[in-house]
Amino acid sequence: MKLKVYTYRLSQPSRAVLIFCKLNGIDFEEITVDLIKRQHLSPEFKEINPMRQVPTIVDGDFKLFESHAILRYLACAFPGVADHWYPTDHIKRAKIDSVLDWHHSNLRHGAVTFLQNTVFAPVLGIQPNPHVAAEAEKKLSASLEKIETFWLQENEQFLLGNTQPSIADLSLVCEIMQLEVLDEEDRNRILGPHKKVQQWIEDTKLATRPHFEEIHRLLFEVKAKLQEQRLLGANTETEFGL
Amino acid sequence: MKLKVYTYRLSQPSRAVLIFCKLNGIDFEEITVDLIKRQHLSPEFKEINPMRQVPTIVDGDFKLFESHAILRYLACAFPGVADHWYPTDHIKRAKIDSVLDWHHSNLRHGAVTFLQNTVFAPVLGIQPNPHVAAEAEKKLSASLEKIETFWLQENEQFLLGNTQPSIADLSLVCEIMQLEVLDEEDRNRILGPHKKVQQWIEDTKLATRPHFEEIHRLLFEVKAKLQEQRLLGANTETEFGL
Repeated sequence: MKLKVYTYRLSQPSRAVLIFCKLNGIDFEEITVDLIKRQHLSPEFKEINPMRQVPTIVDGDFKLFESHAILRYLACAFPGVADHWYPTDHIKRAKIDSVLDWHHSNLRHGAVTFLQNTVFAPVLGIQPNPHVAAEAEKKLSASLEKIETFWLQENEQFLLGNTQPSIADLSLVCEIMQLEVLDEEDRNRILGPHKKVQQWIEDTKLATRPHFEEIHRLLFEVKAKLQEQRLLGANTETEFGL
Repeated sequence: MKLKVYTYRLSQPSRAVLIFCKLNGIDFEEITVDLIKRQHLSPEFKEINPMRQVPTIVDGDFKLFESHAILRYLACAFPGVADHWYPTDHIKRAKIDSVLDWHHSNLRHGAVTFLQNTVFAPVLGIQPNPHVAAEAEKKLSASLEKIETFWLQENEQFLLGNTQPSIADLSLVCEIMQLEVLDEEDRNRILGPHKKVQQWIEDTKLATRPHFEEIHRLLFEVKAKLQEQRLLGANTETEFGL
């Protein structure tokens, strides 16, 4: 039975899993769970994942969620995935695990909280909290600085001084791509100071084309729509609907 | 060269790594990095881990931080670790990875933020934020409920319906043990409703004795000191020093 991948292309970890599958020739069926239409709250999806999160995969009888766990599983269980994505060598693998674990409470926490308290607040039906947004921006900027000065310190193209991308590059770059929906001023303030990070994003895009662009197309459509609304001075709350 | 483990026994992930090493007969040297004395900020420790976090291990030339990555590495790289801790079977391993990844943004985030904004605020020199504490308690309680109703649903002793503990049991139970420093009212309100969680904590203690108790001794000393101060109505800010 073909692997089923439940995703939403506006979810950054969903995009990482989709790009990984396409890059590695994994045969799969993509099933969209539209978070804005609240499809993750349906009884049908609760059967698939009681945590109601995307991405989720179903491989035969086996259901799995949490994108890092999914990426590790796909790299190990599917034949033909190149070793650089998640090396079998214990030390190389542990370094990638270290980046992935660091991601959760740092880059991911900062980026998600900032976006939830700015651009996505109206979509989520929450009142944006400027204090929380400011704290989240600090965390996000500190995380980008750590990537710039620590994880990318070896002057190689990818994290940890690697010459080929790993699942950590894919996961973290997809996270940062979510900042595309910010207005230019916010995005430049946050990403502008981090030149190595910007180059690494470009290198990851190149190493994963054409799938990276294809899977990010919906995000860029939303970005264009949001920019249009900003220019028109429209009410974001009522106009965001995709 | 013997494995070096940089830890602080009041740090919950440090305790998980120490218990794991002791249980599995891994020969190691424990080096205390006293977070309250700000030893993690020393130039010496920055050389070991520029992120200034414990636990950190040094195995020969290899330095590693992030406790889940450390536990995975130790389970795979050291001979003699029983398979149940982190199984080689892809599906069993992926399930454990899923719990570990879930932990970061749920149980860990809730517990750490709640403790930082209550008991530990004076030690950390921060102003506790009651609104943040209330939100963190919601996240913490929701996480405990997910453990109770989802991760422990199979009516077996350990997470995922396992009959023997994994590194996920160890990591999550050590996290919850940190709640021992709360006053009884707070702790009962948060943990009281979760009977299966309480039983699972006891089962994990039993499965990992006598190391679990030994490694948690310092935490219980701090708990006793805090209770004494509460009874005396002492100023926690000036009296917490260990």
